Amino acid sequence: MPSLLHLDSSADLVSSRSRALTAAFAREWGRLGTDHTVVYRDLHREPLPHLEDASLHWPARLRPADARPSPDAVALQAVIIDELLAADVLLVGVPLYNYSVPSTLKAWIDRIHVPGVTAPFDTDSQPLAGRPAVIVESRGASYDSGTPTERWDHAVPVLELILGNSLGMSVTVISTSLTLAETVPAMAAQLERSRAEFAAAEAAAVELARKLG
Amino acid sequence: MPSLLHLDSSADLVSSRSRALTAAFAREWGRLGTDHTVVYRDLHREPLPHLEDASLHWPARLRPADARPSPDAVALQAVIIDELLAADVLLVGVPLYNYSVPSTLKAWIDRIHVPGVTAPFDTDSQPLAGRPAVIVESRGASYDSGTPTERWDHAVPVLELILGNSLGMSVTVISTSLTLAETVPAMAAQLERSRAEFAAAEAAAVELARKLG
Repeated sequence: MPSLLHLDSSADLVSSRSRALTAAFAREWGRLGTDHTVVYRDLHREPLPHLEDASLHWPARLRPADARPSPDAVALQAVIIDELLAADVLLVGVPLYNYSVPSTLKAWIDRIHVPGVTAPFDTDSQPLAGRPAVIVESRGASYDSGTPTERWDHAVPVLELILGNSLGMSVTVISTSLTLAETVPAMAAQLERSRAEFAAAEAAAVELARKLG
Repeated sequence: MPSLLHLDSSADLVSSRSRALTAAFAREWGRLGTDHTVVYRDLHREPLPHLEDASLHWPARLRPADARPSPDAVALQAVIIDELLAADVLLVGVPLYNYSVPSTLKAWIDRIHVPGVTAPFDTDSQPLAGRPAVIVESRGASYDSGTPTERWDHAVPVLELILGNSLGMSVTVISTSLTLAETVPAMAAQLERSRAEFAAAEAAAVELARKLG
């Protein structure tokens, strides 16, 4: 019963490329067999609140003595973490907004990274170690190696640090750039590359779904 | 009538160092004279919603023809941008959460960076060019040059790109590190450095308030 947890975070419900690519992955996953299940969470349509209390970064045993996170916040965090722990494969759709992840996705990240629970700290707990995480990123501009914007993408590195380093997951990144070439006249010369990158990303998503499923 | 816009985003209302440092700056600002006003926005206690619609990244004239952001969302964005435009100095308190800004602060960033309004795009609009922005950051661990974590802080670079590069503001960063040394036994040896950094940051905040006020 291989289970996929599919997250989307784009605030564009019409022409989002990150949504199109995660959908291509999930569609292929479903084709692999009726035992291939998908749990879908749309972080934009049904947003998580911002992290309610800084003490939720820690499990109860490691919180300050006077910490009093609300029972509702604790319960919601447990739901989100359990949902992740139940997944055999994680699929995250992330558009680059202002050089970083959407706040909707950050609210998810801030709930699932808990040292001593999902990452090693006072214990060597790393329950997701080795499980695949697929990051599907769309970016309005380009961030090519050797150009001035090479290090301006601060979304993927954060996901790699949390999902890869901290949680020990096996991370694959599929990126598509220059999405703004579709709408910004000054970028029209980039349209061909933009569409070629998208087509390549879609093919990579389908292939990866087959490989991981 | 020099006006300060003071933002906090820490989810810790008890022992936050970013809150303590922005408070030290704002207190000194108030001492400079009764004409020194402060507008305070606590992004944690009174959170902004996640960005409601991707089309809000653009002014109406640059949105897709079928974009229909809600009037409430458009109105809220205008309030937040007007508040920023009215400030002579911007002060932002930011704790590093999971190598990035809190989602509460990201929801603010995603509202105020609008090409063609606050940043150059089809026009050379950059109404905040040259105005001071003070970023006060607290970080649980250390991110020293030459160490493996040197580039793991993905909060300050995003604020520098948006406030500095895009909006043209004159950005100063005040950082304090190793805040977890107060509570994590394994970091006890770092406690002295942690407290020394905090004291230095507090002195720098007070001095900067005098200079900018």
